[in-house]
Amino acid sequence: MKCSVFIATSTDGYIADENGGLDWLHISGNQDADMSENPDMGFADYVDSVDCMVMGRKCMETISGFNLTPEQWPYGDIKIYVLSNTLKAAPENLAGKVEVYSGSITDLVHQLEQDGYKHAYIDGGSTITSFLNRQLINEITITRVPVILGGGIPLFGKVEKVVQLREASVIVFPNDYVKVKYAVNYL
Amino acid sequence: MKCSVFIATSTDGYIADENGGLDWLHISGNQDADMSENPDMGFADYVDSVDCMVMGRKCMETISGFNLTPEQWPYGDIKIYVLSNTLKAAPENLAGKVEVYSGSITDLVHQLEQDGYKHAYIDGGSTITSFLNRQLINEITITRVPVILGGGIPLFGKVEKVVQLREASVIVFPNDYVKVKYAVNYL
Repeated sequence: MKCSVFIATSTDGYIADENGGLDWLHISGNQDADMSENPDMGFADYVDSVDCMVMGRKCMETISGFNLTPEQWPYGDIKIYVLSNTLKAAPENLAGKVEVYSGSITDLVHQLEQDGYKHAYIDGGSTITSFLNRQLINEITITRVPVILGGGIPLFGKVEKVVQLREASVIVFPNDYVKVKYAVNYL
Repeated sequence: MKCSVFIATSTDGYIADENGGLDWLHISGNQDADMSENPDMGFADYVDSVDCMVMGRKCMETISGFNLTPEQWPYGDIKIYVLSNTLKAAPENLAGKVEVYSGSITDLVHQLEQDGYKHAYIDGGSTITSFLNRQLINEITITRVPVILGGGIPLFGKVEKVVQLREASVIVFPNDYVKVKYAVNYL
């Protein structure tokens, strides 16, 4: 099964500010740019390419905090697992949308494969680092937001072994966001 | 006077590994790529565009450690100041090449302007952050090396105020290094 990452970070590599906030995403970049050709910078196309998702608890709590309407739900009907050893069930506003999983990542990936899933969207900083440390991520797309935050929650944590990337391809959007896609090359 | 940055970082934003080492620079990216059209990824052209340089002590000590021959010296004959409150003089192998400066950054920039310099190359992580905090950096070029180190010395430290970037322009090299240039937009 292919596992990939599609995430936005500040230019200094943070996925959220020091309070876990995402407000900086909405005030960064050229706000006057014409984004009509790529309003979501490829997010919907990416979601169309996956059939399941694995995210961390904090990532899920952020999404839960958005209180999305069914029309705003960005993940279509893909199967979503939330990794947590402490949660018993999903928050009420995500009931039926996500399933809590407390086993090992390797077992979860095997189960997804057995269930016939082909491409998993891996989300959340510590979840992504855990998958990298198990050499399970095949592709990483990072959309660099043109802002230096100076602190916050980093995308990448401590990796056990240096990870080499390959096949860089880039799109620069009119709002000065830069999207870079890499294949992961485990040595 | 224009102040700019031209620096390489890992994909997770480190300019050196945890021991200050740069060996990862030489083993990352596609080593089989044909780099004959851009062997230095624009470094010599950048150096040609500046007429002076300000670096931190650690950055200078790294360069001193290379024990470069006159033929290997990469900075031409530009004036180079090293910021340090502890050093009395440059190390012997950089004597005549760099000058130690212990005053304030603002005073140094004023002095460089009075001396007729037009464009300063600012180098070293903490020096770059200090210049950003004084709103003195006008342009930042980051060459992203396609590797995740998982730890090390970060390019950007704590900035006092979020820094907005603009006018992103990108070059992807055959070795999968990605060079992004931004103008800095202090609000």
